Amino acid sequence: MGAEAASGEAWGDVTPDAARRLVIAAVEAFAERGYHATTTRDIAGRAGMSPAALYIHYKTKEELLYQISKVGHERSLAMLAEARDTEGTPAERLAAAVRAFVRWHAEYHTTGRIVQYELGALGPEHYREIVALRRQSEDAIRSIIKDGVTAGEFDVPEIPGTTLAVLSLCIDVARWFNPAGRRTPDEVGTLYADLVLRMVRQAD
Amino acid sequence: MGAEAASGEAWGDVTPDAARRLVIAAVEAFAERGYHATTTRDIAGRAGMSPAALYIHYKTKEELLYQISKVGHERSLAMLAEARDTEGTPAERLAAAVRAFVRWHAEYHTTGRIVQYELGALGPEHYREIVALRRQSEDAIRSIIKDGVTAGEFDVPEIPGTTLAVLSLCIDVARWFNPAGRRTPDEVGTLYADLVLRMVRQAD
Repeated sequence: MGAEAASGEAWGDVTPDAARRLVIAAVEAFAERGYHATTTRDIAGRAGMSPAALYIHYKTKEELLYQISKVGHERSLAMLAEARDTEGTPAERLAAAVRAFVRWHAEYHTTGRIVQYELGALGPEHYREIVALRRQSEDAIRSIIKDGVTAGEFDVPEIPGTTLAVLSLCIDVARWFNPAGRRTPDEVGTLYADLVLRMVRQAD
Repeated sequence: MGAEAASGEAWGDVTPDAARRLVIAAVEAFAERGYHATTTRDIAGRAGMSPAALYIHYKTKEELLYQISKVGHERSLAMLAEARDTEGTPAERLAAAVRAFVRWHAEYHTTGRIVQYELGALGPEHYREIVALRRQSEDAIRSIIKDGVTAGEFDVPEIPGTTLAVLSLCIDVARWFNPAGRRTPDEVGTLYADLVLRMVRQAD
């Protein structure tokens, strides 16, 4: 978990440095004890900063959760939109989307869990903004599936329900993934892309 | 959530009455604020009891979590084992297992979330016991998939990975299911059974 949270790659967009340290500390604290049991004092302490120094960057604990959630959701949307917009058959694009989305949820499973499980703790405005990002991610997957159905390449029971199942399968990787387990993020991505393509293929 | 937690059906096995009321109060409190932010005093208060009265039934907050987790996991295992042991083709049995498991995670999504997300808060001995129940649930699904592969009815990339994906898909229903949404637990169960059968079918 430390390795994940400390990874510069995950939080590189958060500046300045002190704000990034606070985000990393918040991810660790929320993951360990849950959002509600964590105080801004805990977070500041983990980051080696005073509560007053935290307050310069984040007025509330909720702002930290929002920052974490926003970065996570924007990252997810960017990779799904890229897969949607790339060249290739619907099957190739769906496989690319699943591989990328699964890899992210495996590599950043600690962040993924917070982002997914603490949605209800966001303030109303932040919640609406995050839900809009989630809808766009859903739209990206739905549009690839729809393209496959239109092209006669996919056969699915219903497009919205299949979209929901594909996203859910990928997201839940954050819950069960264990870096000490026998599968790497890449291997899970490849397995899941295969399983999802089986789900949507024509029975011919 | 109140409707779910108060349902006699879910906690009918927990006796006496006072212990059941405490379990229901704990489910509500853990769901609202997380395990770590909840105190036994909160739980007793919700159940309309004193902390001393709670202590008669549960010595610690962890004992309440264990009780909730045990009932949830035993229920899950019972329905998966029933599907495994029933008459029928592997496809029929796999569909029955998915339908039952999904329905449970939709109907009892609040309990399902606690059971799934707070595993790490169990004491070492209780954790081992719950993990053993989870392994048995996994074995039940794996054995149905294996039967289908052996019979030449199913074709899967690999049995353990497919088992993991099927369980994960069903469990994640607890995260996203919304009783005010457009799908009933039964409808999700039917959709998911269809999607899982597509995942394992022969390409012929």
